[in-house]
Amino acid sequence: MAITFICPENDTISWITALKTLDPTLDIRVWPGDEPKEEIEMALTWKHPPGTLTEYPNLGCICSMGAGIDHLLADPLLPDPDLPGNPTIVRLVDQRLADNMSEYLLLAVLYHFRQFDFYQAKKEERLWEPILPLEKKEMVIGIMGLGQLGEAAAKRLGETGFPVCGWRNSHKKIDGIQSFHGKGELDNFLSRARILICLLPLTRKTRHILNLDTFSKLPGGAYLINVGRGGHLKEIDLLTALDQKVLSGACLDVFQSEPLPGDHPFWQHPKIMLTPHISSQTNPMSVAPQIVSNLNRLRAGESLLNRVDIKKEY
Amino acid sequence: MAITFICPENDTISWITALKTLDPTLDIRVWPGDEPKEEIEMALTWKHPPGTLTEYPNLGCICSMGAGIDHLLADPLLPDPDLPGNPTIVRLVDQRLADNMSEYLLLAVLYHFRQFDFYQAKKEERLWEPILPLEKKEMVIGIMGLGQLGEAAAKRLGETGFPVCGWRNSHKKIDGIQSFHGKGELDNFLSRARILICLLPLTRKTRHILNLDTFSKLPGGAYLINVGRGGHLKEIDLLTALDQKVLSGACLDVFQSEPLPGDHPFWQHPKIMLTPHISSQTNPMSVAPQIVSNLNRLRAGESLLNRVDIKKEY
Repeated sequence: MAITFICPENDTISWITALKTLDPTLDIRVWPGDEPKEEIEMALTWKHPPGTLTEYPNLGCICSMGAGIDHLLADPLLPDPDLPGNPTIVRLVDQRLADNMSEYLLLAVLYHFRQFDFYQAKKEERLWEPILPLEKKEMVIGIMGLGQLGEAAAKRLGETGFPVCGWRNSHKKIDGIQSFHGKGELDNFLSRARILICLLPLTRKTRHILNLDTFSKLPGGAYLINVGRGGHLKEIDLLTALDQKVLSGACLDVFQSEPLPGDHPFWQHPKIMLTPHISSQTNPMSVAPQIVSNLNRLRAGESLLNRVDIKKEY
Repeated sequence: MAITFICPENDTISWITALKTLDPTLDIRVWPGDEPKEEIEMALTWKHPPGTLTEYPNLGCICSMGAGIDHLLADPLLPDPDLPGNPTIVRLVDQRLADNMSEYLLLAVLYHFRQFDFYQAKKEERLWEPILPLEKKEMVIGIMGLGQLGEAAAKRLGETGFPVCGWRNSHKKIDGIQSFHGKGELDNFLSRARILICLLPLTRKTRHILNLDTFSKLPGGAYLINVGRGGHLKEIDLLTALDQKVLSGACLDVFQSEPLPGDHPFWQHPKIMLTPHISSQTNPMSVAPQIVSNLNRLRAGESLLNRVDIKKEY
């Protein structure tokens, strides 16, 4: 029996090396050309072509090659893991991924808090214009999404001295963080966040949650950081919010369409900092143990790690 | 008896407010117009006009309004504090100043380490070009100057996971930091530093220590951060080093001439990030207690805090 990678856009060499290092006996294939299909028991996927996952009669586990599963849910033919006989769906949960994300967010927050965005604009104008520093205790950071990544970021930013509040679907208590949940508490949460960070999973409920109505509930001139998914942001609304000074700026790592098209207005917008989806890249060496562990659990008939709740969409 | 401010370029209102909050009975004057001169016992100075400090017959203490004293030493008529009857010279030593400086340096280091400099350049070109992340364990940070600010920065960067080494005039052991000292160990120190941070005091010995010869001893494509003084950097040599790719970039907060003249080539250099001397601004509320404490010690004939060693020039 074998594992297959189904990830047309990704390089698989470093992943295969990591898995083989851990267990040299593994039989690893890469789609397309991973026949015979009945030998495949586990599929590692990222943006697989819709329908391909139905072709493997003995598939026991579908594993997302990242923390998100929105790329799986985009496939209308995805086998329903709640039906008997269908493969279980799991995702990768990785401390290193969380650390890298927290570090990116610390950098993006400090860049705005220490007014480097202002000074970079002044540099363009050749203007020496020192301004009063901002007060850290007033720079409340609001994190939407308090899963593994959100909680790690909240702790890291809190340790750096920023007041942090968080919002999520259901209640979760985290020490030192003011926690809000559900639709009923969203406005209250938004009214505090001078820097809004999106780390939500992308679901039908959270698509386009970053829109003009949301932005208008933030303190005036708030700053947006989106490291969730491009689908969270209604992109045209960000341009309007920046034009109308509802927002003072944004740092974006994810986009509706990736790679971001060359004629997209975000590229040369002076108030947008952007990076090409690098806020937290999965390190194959770091996640190989949980993949091998799930393969062994699958073979032993045990329950798998990091299972996805398909109804919640994450 | 009274205190006077002699700082033609600085606003004094927030300083006076901070001191008065602590001791409402203080008699505080501002140069010029702080007569009669014989009533002045303590002078708070920043870039005072040369010679002015000789005009106060009863001056007991000259206090720099920052951590550095190079602005005092620029005055050839500065009273020698080692001669009997002359005022003692002190400087401000402040944990908040050290924290702010460490935070600025963390931001500048992360900006380069997380390749935001590369991605900002790509943004200008509208190019989506994710590259492999750098390895933190290989990103050795070399700090020149291990005084209060240097030591605090070394600890902060070390906690963030970067290997840190330091170099100073004389030996000083700091846990977790590889420490070099003196001219004999400078080349060895430089050969390790992929990011070079200057936090030295500006003295005759350290003027222009950041020159092409120094840069050429760093690993190829190293990154420079200067938050010491503009006089540490031979500015023309930085331009040469960037042109020749001896250095990959620089972040500068201090300059030979401040404000940086509008026609200076640093302004629009794509590989230079610059800020207008804001890496660590002294907060009057935070330093007022040590100023009042030194005034009381002066009146009681006790030895003063944070005395400067005029022979060492810091």
